[in-house]
Amino acid sequence: MIERIAILGTGLLGTSAGLALRAAGFGGSIVGWNRGAEGAQTALSVGAINSIATDALQAARESQVVLLAVPIYATLNWMEQLSGMLGPEQLITDVGSTKAQITAAAGRLYNTPERAGFLPGHPMAGKERGGAALGDADLFRGAVWLFTADPAWELSPASAELASDWRELVAAMGSKTLDLDAARHDELVGWVSHLPQFVATALSALLEEEVGDAPELKDVGGRALREMTRLGASPYSMWRDIAYTNTAAVEAALDALEQRLAHLRENLRTPGLREEFEQANRFRREQ
Amino acid sequence: MIERIAILGTGLLGTSAGLALRAAGFGGSIVGWNRGAEGAQTALSVGAINSIATDALQAARESQVVLLAVPIYATLNWMEQLSGMLGPEQLITDVGSTKAQITAAAGRLYNTPERAGFLPGHPMAGKERGGAALGDADLFRGAVWLFTADPAWELSPASAELASDWRELVAAMGSKTLDLDAARHDELVGWVSHLPQFVATALSALLEEEVGDAPELKDVGGRALREMTRLGASPYSMWRDIAYTNTAAVEAALDALEQRLAHLRENLRTPGLREEFEQANRFRREQ
Repeated sequence: MIERIAILGTGLLGTSAGLALRAAGFGGSIVGWNRGAEGAQTALSVGAINSIATDALQAARESQVVLLAVPIYATLNWMEQLSGMLGPEQLITDVGSTKAQITAAAGRLYNTPERAGFLPGHPMAGKERGGAALGDADLFRGAVWLFTADPAWELSPASAELASDWRELVAAMGSKTLDLDAARHDELVGWVSHLPQFVATALSALLEEEVGDAPELKDVGGRALREMTRLGASPYSMWRDIAYTNTAAVEAALDALEQRLAHLRENLRTPGLREEFEQANRFRREQ
Repeated sequence: MIERIAILGTGLLGTSAGLALRAAGFGGSIVGWNRGAEGAQTALSVGAINSIATDALQAARESQVVLLAVPIYATLNWMEQLSGMLGPEQLITDVGSTKAQITAAAGRLYNTPERAGFLPGHPMAGKERGGAALGDADLFRGAVWLFTADPAWELSPASAELASDWRELVAAMGSKTLDLDAARHDELVGWVSHLPQFVATALSALLEEEVGDAPELKDVGGRALREMTRLGASPYSMWRDIAYTNTAAVEAALDALEQRLAHLRENLRTPGLREEFEQANRFRREQ
């Protein structure tokens, strides 16, 4: 039974996880740490955590489960720092959006019978803006929470049980869990998560340049424009590490879309346009 | 006072207009014509029209206002057919998504003191699927309804009054009216309406090819994917005429986005990515 959780990073995901754990009936203690004091205070005031840790390492040492809810490079950094301090009665898990590097580090630094367990996780949920103030107990409801553990790892019995308990808590938060190979994960999210974000960013940036100062713009843009540019509000700080740690997949996806747009552009007045619409229709029918 | 309206084309927009007119308190008669009998029956059964016309030309002749709610080339075709039949006591208006060709035809065929008036219109509202069955009395609520009349036209007093009455009905349907030059209209919607649609189509078609058969896809895709591909369901039949009648603007917009995506792809690990996100953030702040 998990009784003490440390959340390192009480931004949108960390705060939402604390709130969702409470809403799911988790009765243990949740200690939170955040790089900025304000985010920790907000998480405390909304009830996502019971107490604020001033020393993240100590909070991690004293917890059964440590949830890393920080950007990817910060996650990798904490993994290095914590690996020598935690033991086989403990589990770390994370929420990072790319999993190849984190899963590789998890195999190198954790997940032997003598060490703490590390369960690489990725909830497919978020908002286009971050921060503890947007924390939402329902953020993970109806979402899928991916895990990319390597089946070859040999966890200690205690950390294996904590991993199983954490999966149950994730289900109680309203998410469906799904296991994927880490490389497959990064390839797939490159297409279905990272590509849509970078397209929305490029489209929004282009429209800002081309029509950003058009006085009619606010009126003329309808639901389609709002939807296709909503993710344009996403901050660089949330996407920098994703661009760095899934570069090849994102490059391939962007390059493929550039070619697809050029093909469509060259076929605006040919039967090729019909084929493109029909292919797009098929994708939506299957969703 | 408008007492008799003919709606030629009872698809999504025509049926929605009929329903919205009724909801706004329009008490006159609405006769509907549709190329397919089923769409007319549906429009009749939901109360969007009072009666079905078997002869569109006769229905137009007997009405004060004719609303053309058909694709762009069909609109241009009706404009040719109706110009010799209608007189200065009548008004035609339309809902076509591109306005340069329709407005040019309106100047050539209508809008002299001896002829019927033609008010080129374009409600910025729609759905990703068409058809009378999706007709919605609230479709135009909160939307902007663009008009691209040429200020140099000299309408007959009666048709000028009908145009003024139609604008009032549009406002009563919940839309804000806005006047734009036709060329400016086509350029602007090329950026904020047509480009988002063609991007969603290309993205959806690409994803169908790359991951359409991935068993995990349904689970992994979240709100971002659904939003960025919703318009992928739009049928070719709704967009063919737009591609044909606003080709240059759409080509320019697609070409610009291809270059923008290439720039982003080449800068995934440089400060250029931050600049692109910040530019996109500015666009969203202004929306």
